[in-house]
Amino acid sequence: MGSLFRTDVIAEEGIQMQSSKHYEGVFAQGSGYLHIRGSFEEGLKAADQNEEYMRLPANVTIEKPRHPRSKCGTYVPGITGSHPLLREELVNLPNPLAFYVAADGEDLDMDESRISGYVRQLDLNRALLSREFIWETKGGAKLSCSYRRYVSMDCRNLIVQKMRFCPEDGSLLLSMKGTVDEKVKTNGYNHFTHVEKQALGGLVCVYLKTDTGDEVRVAALTVSPQAEFTPEADMSAAEVRLAKGQEAEVIRLSMVSTSRDPEGLLSLEAIRKRLQTAVSRQEELWEEHCRAWKRLWDMSRVTIEGDEKAQLAVNFSVYHLLRSCNDRDDRIAVCAKGFAGEAYFGHYFWDTEVYLLPFFLYTRPEAAKMLERFRIRTLEGAKKNAAAYGYAGARYPWESGLTGEEQCPNWQYGDHEVHITADVAFGLWHYFCATKDEEFLEQAAPVFVETARYWLERSYEGEDGCVHINGVMGPDEYVCLCSDNAYTNYMVRQSLLHTVRIVEMLQEKNPEAAKALGADEAFLQKIQSAADRLTIRRRDDKVILQCAEFEQLEEPDFDRLWPDKTKAFGSFVSQERNYRTKALKQADVLMLFYLFPKAFDREALEENYRYYLPYTTHDSSLSCIIHSILCCLRGKPEEACEFFERALDIDLDETKGGAAEGIHIANCGGIWQAVIFGFCGMSRAYETDELTFAPMLPKSWRAVRFPVCFKGGMHQVEITHEKVCIDETPTVG
Amino acid sequence: MGSLFRTDVIAEEGIQMQSSKHYEGVFAQGSGYLHIRGSFEEGLKAADQNEEYMRLPANVTIEKPRHPRSKCGTYVPGITGSHPLLREELVNLPNPLAFYVAADGEDLDMDESRISGYVRQLDLNRALLSREFIWETKGGAKLSCSYRRYVSMDCRNLIVQKMRFCPEDGSLLLSMKGTVDEKVKTNGYNHFTHVEKQALGGLVCVYLKTDTGDEVRVAALTVSPQAEFTPEADMSAAEVRLAKGQEAEVIRLSMVSTSRDPEGLLSLEAIRKRLQTAVSRQEELWEEHCRAWKRLWDMSRVTIEGDEKAQLAVNFSVYHLLRSCNDRDDRIAVCAKGFAGEAYFGHYFWDTEVYLLPFFLYTRPEAAKMLERFRIRTLEGAKKNAAAYGYAGARYPWESGLTGEEQCPNWQYGDHEVHITADVAFGLWHYFCATKDEEFLEQAAPVFVETARYWLERSYEGEDGCVHINGVMGPDEYVCLCSDNAYTNYMVRQSLLHTVRIVEMLQEKNPEAAKALGADEAFLQKIQSAADRLTIRRRDDKVILQCAEFEQLEEPDFDRLWPDKTKAFGSFVSQERNYRTKALKQADVLMLFYLFPKAFDREALEENYRYYLPYTTHDSSLSCIIHSILCCLRGKPEEACEFFERALDIDLDETKGGAAEGIHIANCGGIWQAVIFGFCGMSRAYETDELTFAPMLPKSWRAVRFPVCFKGGMHQVEITHEKVCIDETPTVG
Repeated sequence: MGSLFRTDVIAEEGIQMQSSKHYEGVFAQGSGYLHIRGSFEEGLKAADQNEEYMRLPANVTIEKPRHPRSKCGTYVPGITGSHPLLREELVNLPNPLAFYVAADGEDLDMDESRISGYVRQLDLNRALLSREFIWETKGGAKLSCSYRRYVSMDCRNLIVQKMRFCPEDGSLLLSMKGTVDEKVKTNGYNHFTHVEKQALGGLVCVYLKTDTGDEVRVAALTVSPQAEFTPEADMSAAEVRLAKGQEAEVIRLSMVSTSRDPEGLLSLEAIRKRLQTAVSRQEELWEEHCRAWKRLWDMSRVTIEGDEKAQLAVNFSVYHLLRSCNDRDDRIAVCAKGFAGEAYFGHYFWDTEVYLLPFFLYTRPEAAKMLERFRIRTLEGAKKNAAAYGYAGARYPWESGLTGEEQCPNWQYGDHEVHITADVAFGLWHYFCATKDEEFLEQAAPVFVETARYWLERSYEGEDGCVHINGVMGPDEYVCLCSDNAYTNYMVRQSLLHTVRIVEMLQEKNPEAAKALGADEAFLQKIQSAADRLTIRRRDDKVILQCAEFEQLEEPDFDRLWPDKTKAFGSFVSQERNYRTKALKQADVLMLFYLFPKAFDREALEENYRYYLPYTTHDSSLSCIIHSILCCLRGKPEEACEFFERALDIDLDETKGGAAEGIHIANCGGIWQAVIFGFCGMSRAYETDELTFAPMLPKSWRAVRFPVCFKGGMHQVEITHEKVCIDETPTVG
Repeated sequence: MGSLFRTDVIAEEGIQMQSSKHYEGVFAQGSGYLHIRGSFEEGLKAADQNEEYMRLPANVTIEKPRHPRSKCGTYVPGITGSHPLLREELVNLPNPLAFYVAADGEDLDMDESRISGYVRQLDLNRALLSREFIWETKGGAKLSCSYRRYVSMDCRNLIVQKMRFCPEDGSLLLSMKGTVDEKVKTNGYNHFTHVEKQALGGLVCVYLKTDTGDEVRVAALTVSPQAEFTPEADMSAAEVRLAKGQEAEVIRLSMVSTSRDPEGLLSLEAIRKRLQTAVSRQEELWEEHCRAWKRLWDMSRVTIEGDEKAQLAVNFSVYHLLRSCNDRDDRIAVCAKGFAGEAYFGHYFWDTEVYLLPFFLYTRPEAAKMLERFRIRTLEGAKKNAAAYGYAGARYPWESGLTGEEQCPNWQYGDHEVHITADVAFGLWHYFCATKDEEFLEQAAPVFVETARYWLERSYEGEDGCVHINGVMGPDEYVCLCSDNAYTNYMVRQSLLHTVRIVEMLQEKNPEAAKALGADEAFLQKIQSAADRLTIRRRDDKVILQCAEFEQLEEPDFDRLWPDKTKAFGSFVSQERNYRTKALKQADVLMLFYLFPKAFDREALEENYRYYLPYTTHDSSLSCIIHSILCCLRGKPEEACEFFERALDIDLDETKGGAAEGIHIANCGGIWQAVIFGFCGMSRAYETDELTFAPMLPKSWRAVRFPVCFKGGMHQVEITHEKVCIDETPTVG
């Protein structure tokens, strides 16, 4: 790799044990179907993966998680368990990577062993994680070690590991044990109600049943040209004496199969056969994997000339976005941590519609369609939520599990962040505008009608004749309960207006389908009337009030209360104090300017930006990247760069360790948006019919190139300071 | 007992198994030091006392508790455990009452056995619980059974049980087993880290250590003139063949000793000796117990002529108040359930100052002093709370454990019901006014100064120049977060003004002590200024607004949303909806009219009563009794009676089952207040220097008689429709 800065490789520079959990998130690999964290194959002795404890629902932003050293993770989205406090959660499956090495009887442990020449890196193009180092044993032997692994993007339930060991200056006895480690917990909780484990030759297989009834098999086959692996207790073990310079190579092939898979749970025999075939097809497997990733990159690669850090961060973001989304399964979406950790419990948030969708929608609409079909599929769950809260219609969950029923363990968010219901409708509308897929819109129509039904009951006609939505939490989670949150009401109004439009369109095209919606003229009039009278409070100076109470909130005394601005404001003040001040966790009113830039004039943007920025702590990882885009809209690309860099650091700054409990996948989506919608100034499909750009490139950026899908067409875009080329035809910027 | 209605006996009329858990609360017995629930000696087979589960923090008003049939309870206030979610909680100790009977091999079980002639009653004067019935076995034998038990009010860690069994029409083999049942949980949780159990002759002893490090011994000695009890496994067992008419009598004496006791943990040998001595002193023990109760009753008995139901309820209330308070220990107070159940986890609330204190203060000031000294003792904990929330001074906990640190498991109450801090100061002031105990006031002064210090930081000077207290929950827990709650601000103002007065008094009397408070002139001026500018919002029509936001809250649609008014409104609506409406859980603004009747004119009372009543659900057990008192102040004794009766039913209406998880001890205190402050119209010591009454007796009440302590004097009061007699001197009413 050399000393040149590479923008397609994430490298751990020297061994960074204090950040090991962070790197486990950064180095997560996956195939959409299966995800693994970047843990060491041999684990860490100091980090018991089987510790049981009760993780309490808390504010994840300021919570101090357990397992400071290491938390292995093996996830198949859709395989969930039931936790007494955290509710439905993504289950951490048995770890098939487990491979333990001893030299002359001494165990390798990255905490304790003497290590030199350490290099670990993730090749983003080929999604390959490698680790190389020299291990000097206490007995003085030196062993050169090399590990590589990938989750196949072609055969998506397959993991391939390849290890090489070679003594540097004398012979030694190498003992190796491979297993599938079923002694793992999810957030300290055991979701396995039944576990069987077998070791047969080089094969170790774990069968388990989860507390929600899913069945899973995880199997790993270990082979080596230099040593025969045989069962030892519940592992596959081998020993080999290596002379100086003599290399031992070990191949491990692992497969996961679950009862949720379209082909059903594979038998142990079927898995064994597939793994044995795979052993003989290693080269082809690797090539197929690389081809699959190349196809993905070809559809999504963003090239930034002139800014290597930005280029690396965009590559990193796109890599995790590509990995996180299963474009073959609409029973799942992309969870808040990109299936790279256990925080947020594998739940799906508004991140899907607002932060993630655009990347997929404008690069691979067929993947976006899965995310949107997920919301249509979970309409029944949303109806149950509405009923549980005492309302008609459908209310989407702030934290969605598989059925769409509310899984948020903290009532203040789950009960009150009702904007999610409007966000879901917005996502569907966005999908339709970008694809013009009318058949899809017909499928989505019930979501609009049922959520509108909910809004009619959830809103309140005041004595002033206006319609209010009271008792909500907006995107800014530092104001706990407020009325007429501008973001919420604006999004609800959009959603009601779209409902009217969609029903009318359907009445024309497919009267039968329209009738089945149960949305008659009187109902449409009610919706229209509610939309017309929904309250958004604007001051004379064009400042839109975040909520009715905003001006009565206390001024936050940041100078006194926030001594270290590199840490979250929320970590210095009690929630009680925070809830009564104007301190904002993240953009709230400003989200509207980001989402609907054409709906507001430049002066309004400036006034609102000026008003809210001083109150904004950016404690949420969803904030900086929005501000970066806003600065582009304000014509301030260099200011935008400052926010952009802060956003890049969220997962990449090793000193912050932000990826420890998983990737901030919404921020990854936001980084893509900042480049495309912000710096390149692309208009969204719901605001224009034509693909247009109003670029605002930073000085150092010489050119940005990317592919984009827009209303059915595929385009290659190149933007420089001089011109905008769409499919090599320059247009006016 | 006959068919005459007795007002000194609570009787279960026929066996009421569907209400068995309710009667366990109603029939709770105790000595201040030790409390036991009214469970059957033999337990219920269907009610496993050892079930482990995770009780979640929830709204206790609408929570559906476990153990529908039976929950045994043995509590020593001060012996607490640490629960991962509920925090510090009163520990349910091993049950020394356990005594199992079999006739001809068939077990007695009140659920399954054929029972006739069942009578169970609690003699309130002598605090004796008895149960009598005929048990017909499946084999056809009839056994007359009689159980009696009491917790000695003289030897306060001693329980005495006496059982008699006699065949009615043939001989049978009676098998008996007595034990101390250590297989018990507290709210489904195990707090015992170490348990040892021994059976020695008729003695069974359990030693245990709790997860907070306390040590406890519970021992029971079983003897019978007709049978020798010998160890069998970990029980004491005996068998005896009884001929028709031949009686077996069994005596059980149990003792509890803990490491928190002033004399320390007793050895097994010491306990054995005490119990053996007790066996030979049964008569004397009973007489000493009765004398101790008589002394208590003599100081507290309220006689109501003309209303037997009211008389019974007042007796019931006074009984539980006398039982709940340990007048020898200021390290504990009286918990919300009167140590008669596990709800609210043994925590101490504002109930202490507002609902309980007056009874003790005006009947036995030395008991009241313990409750108030508890608050002074826990000042250090209150300082820790203030610091934890980021403030100077002291902030009393909404739910107090032993140290005064916040134990409330639900943040919306714990973080925001800050009125507790002013309530504590109010209680101390009330104690001082009623006793004129200046030495006590000196001890209490730091509480006033430190809480004032807290208020200076917790309040906020707005742009309007007024001082506000934002982001609070008032007594009405159905408004979650509000500003300038009138009750809170009024109480805070009082507390600040008292602080100034107390410091000035102390400066005069004891300048050294005054100086040590760290309350200089500038500080006092700040307090005075804050008190003067604290905002209470009054409308022109004299309605005091509950909070700044009250008029913007939604009208609650009771007609549509509350189909069954015999159940709580909160059980029909989601918290989310409730939090945005004007529905009140309980009196809030009206609490001020109840506490400070002389501070408001009659018109203001009427206007506020009229305004708030329609919104008030009385979902809280603290509401009806206050409204009863308010109706007396409004000159409407018959309306007052309606609320009074609803309050009596809270623990006594078997169909409601309200006592299942413990007694509503605050309501008991409220019932005493309703008679004395409401119907008899006594003025509190902080409002007058003279003992005065403005009676408002209901028509049916011929006379009310009671003792009262007032500013150091003891008085006998008799009130009739015609006159008020204090110490037999009639005065003008």
